[in-house]
Amino acid sequence: MFSRIMVANRGEIALRIIRACREMGIETVAVCSKSDANATYLKLADIVVCIGPADAEGSYLNIPSIISAAEITDIEAIHPGYGFLSEVSHFAEVCESSNIVFIGPKSDALRKLGNKTEARKIAIENKVPVVPGSLSVIKSQQEALSVAHEIGFPVIIKASLGGGGRGMRVAHNDISLINSLTIAQREAKAAFKDSSIYIEKYIEDARHIEVQIVGDNYGNIIHLGERDCTMQRRHQKLIEESPAPYITDRAREDICKAAIKMAKSINYTNAGTVEFLLDKENNYYFIEVNTRLQVEHPVTEMVTGIDLVKLQIKIASGERLNIKQKKIRSQGVAIECRINAEDPYNDFRPQPGKITNYHPPGGRGVRVDSHIHSGYEIPPYYDSLIAKLIVHQNTREEAIACMRRALSEYVIEGVKTTIPLQLDLITHPQFANGNINTNFVDNLMAKT
Amino acid sequence: MFSRIMVANRGEIALRIIRACREMGIETVAVCSKSDANATYLKLADIVVCIGPADAEGSYLNIPSIISAAEITDIEAIHPGYGFLSEVSHFAEVCESSNIVFIGPKSDALRKLGNKTEARKIAIENKVPVVPGSLSVIKSQQEALSVAHEIGFPVIIKASLGGGGRGMRVAHNDISLINSLTIAQREAKAAFKDSSIYIEKYIEDARHIEVQIVGDNYGNIIHLGERDCTMQRRHQKLIEESPAPYITDRAREDICKAAIKMAKSINYTNAGTVEFLLDKENNYYFIEVNTRLQVEHPVTEMVTGIDLVKLQIKIASGERLNIKQKKIRSQGVAIECRINAEDPYNDFRPQPGKITNYHPPGGRGVRVDSHIHSGYEIPPYYDSLIAKLIVHQNTREEAIACMRRALSEYVIEGVKTTIPLQLDLITHPQFANGNINTNFVDNLMAKT
Repeated sequence: MFSRIMVANRGEIALRIIRACREMGIETVAVCSKSDANATYLKLADIVVCIGPADAEGSYLNIPSIISAAEITDIEAIHPGYGFLSEVSHFAEVCESSNIVFIGPKSDALRKLGNKTEARKIAIENKVPVVPGSLSVIKSQQEALSVAHEIGFPVIIKASLGGGGRGMRVAHNDISLINSLTIAQREAKAAFKDSSIYIEKYIEDARHIEVQIVGDNYGNIIHLGERDCTMQRRHQKLIEESPAPYITDRAREDICKAAIKMAKSINYTNAGTVEFLLDKENNYYFIEVNTRLQVEHPVTEMVTGIDLVKLQIKIASGERLNIKQKKIRSQGVAIECRINAEDPYNDFRPQPGKITNYHPPGGRGVRVDSHIHSGYEIPPYYDSLIAKLIVHQNTREEAIACMRRALSEYVIEGVKTTIPLQLDLITHPQFANGNINTNFVDNLMAKT
Repeated sequence: MFSRIMVANRGEIALRIIRACREMGIETVAVCSKSDANATYLKLADIVVCIGPADAEGSYLNIPSIISAAEITDIEAIHPGYGFLSEVSHFAEVCESSNIVFIGPKSDALRKLGNKTEARKIAIENKVPVVPGSLSVIKSQQEALSVAHEIGFPVIIKASLGGGGRGMRVAHNDISLINSLTIAQREAKAAFKDSSIYIEKYIEDARHIEVQIVGDNYGNIIHLGERDCTMQRRHQKLIEESPAPYITDRAREDICKAAIKMAKSINYTNAGTVEFLLDKENNYYFIEVNTRLQVEHPVTEMVTGIDLVKLQIKIASGERLNIKQKKIRSQGVAIECRINAEDPYNDFRPQPGKITNYHPPGGRGVRVDSHIHSGYEIPPYYDSLIAKLIVHQNTREEAIACMRRALSEYVIEGVKTTIPLQLDLITHPQFANGNINTNFVDNLMAKT
């Protein structure tokens, strides 16, 4: 096992990883930007290295600076968290060539799956259903129109190197397709330094279902069940749960099997997530693989009892998976709310600033993953996620009641948050009876 | 199911019960003393009634005042929590005659088991081993000496109506027995308004093991496994866990069976705890039954997945136990630390006063049950318990590591707490290897 690990991230996920290391008796080196240098969670790390300015390009995305900090502090492995460098194959390569273990898949898997048109090909080769669409990158307007006519409108334009919903555009006719094409290419170029896009049929009334997979370095791959992340706003997840409710057992089994099949075909290692859309008829379509720990991993931890971060670290250190697929039992229901410092009733405008009063909920079935506290200053430079509230109960009805109770106890003063919206969503009858799709929140907000 | 319940208690357990009711959709009426009237947790109740002065005799122990508040607010049931009126059979009787459901055992069971010499008789009748000692109340010094000579020194003097370690005295010879007798009778009189005492053999090197039992109104009684509460200071529990470590499976099974046998013999209803001592040779001896929810109930909730407060309420409302004994599985290991506002390095002197900064730990496997927050003023009138920190992990080693991590993250400023002592205890090699007894803390503190 490693004796010292670097945590190359910030905020709640940095704290999440530091906590796991403290419980495992592993020393941690935390990196930070100048803007995060006084953050309290850094006090829980053994060593802190400031790696650059507030701007992420100069700090959390600055590979030379991170590697140099790693060499100075003599760490054996780097946990990249999610976002930032977690899915950058070049970063994993640099780690590999610097003799540092990258806690995640091999750089080769990151490269293949990071390119979504490549990932689609892998799915097709494995006979996993994909959304009808272009087989490769769209080269011209004419090609875009011809693909769209073949599969039929509406279609969705996606960035080849995309992720997290950025650069996605839905088009309902020729004119909006031509317009959206240029915008999507520009957005892709800005976000991923590559303007490549592809086109898929836009599945309406779809649910978002994803499968947590874990593989060791010896070819053993298991899944830890699925999550439902249908409650999204503009492709940004707001509420996640496990197991997925209102899905046939047949579809659940098939989706998990498909995820394993794809992972095995490329010898996937460490944690990853295979994402699918599920239509009203319980048909499923592969969309992409996220080659990292996901924000919503705690719901899987709650129902399976498995600590995913500890498992990632163990696997990266060369341990074998010591859990058999058939021993994994999903118990009860877990729901997570991503609490963002955003004003949900003012176009989700980010709310940087000082938290004047903070008191998290507690009691049976409640887990809070957060780095914030009374007096914490939310910097304006990064993602607006400030806390994850996770509940675990025996039934979905109880989990919803517990989430409602916990959200209503949560005290965060000084900035606006998504809590009032999440209280509305969690108590909405359509959430209770499962009658939602990925557009539910956007449609709801448009109405009010 | 009830639509409105009164919570006749204060602090963390009042909040615990209010939370359960909120999740169940039951309205709550909270009572409070004048000193608690501004406490934040009361805001989570639907109705708050001030029932008397700071002094518990005038408020939380004031039966007429509580019943009158109950009648005004039209509640259907009262949850008494632990301490205060929770084991007072007269209170349960008054509830019964006022047509209010007392959420706990029947007044008859409270009376029988509240008298410890009576409880001993029930154990003996059921062939459950008891600590050798007097069969009934000690009437004279001569009788005390003769019992002590028969069973052999050391002996322990206990109040017949005792509980929570109050009024207990250990004697090692004739002289100390005679002296302690008078003191114990005086203490018993002061604490329980009854000077009756009895004498038992003092079991040295004993562990404290207790069994959680639950019975419905239809004769169904199950146990939810055992807890080990050996880590005590002067008979006050500091750290509790489930399952009990370092006990033979045979002893574990026998103890649980003995608890069920006793409960069945008196048609016990609702939640209760049967307490035993376990000697070095894994022999067990019944000591008493606690006829209420215990402070340490969360460790049982964590390993069984059962919400004990909700279950108490369901049973009291007339529901049948819908869990079969053989379906109950204990999963993983849960440990609880009782955080008291006391200075552990100054004779555990209580620390009333203002909490200037508060931030509880979080993350996977951590549960916090507490009513305090930044700015909360701990009143000097009541028990010094301010928070319960509970962890749940797959193995005992991981649970200890998680507790160490969580204790070290816990921020409580303004008053001294038992956290530094609990950090020492949880990381002590003798706790890890189970080589402790109920005197461990007292001996450790005497040495330093």
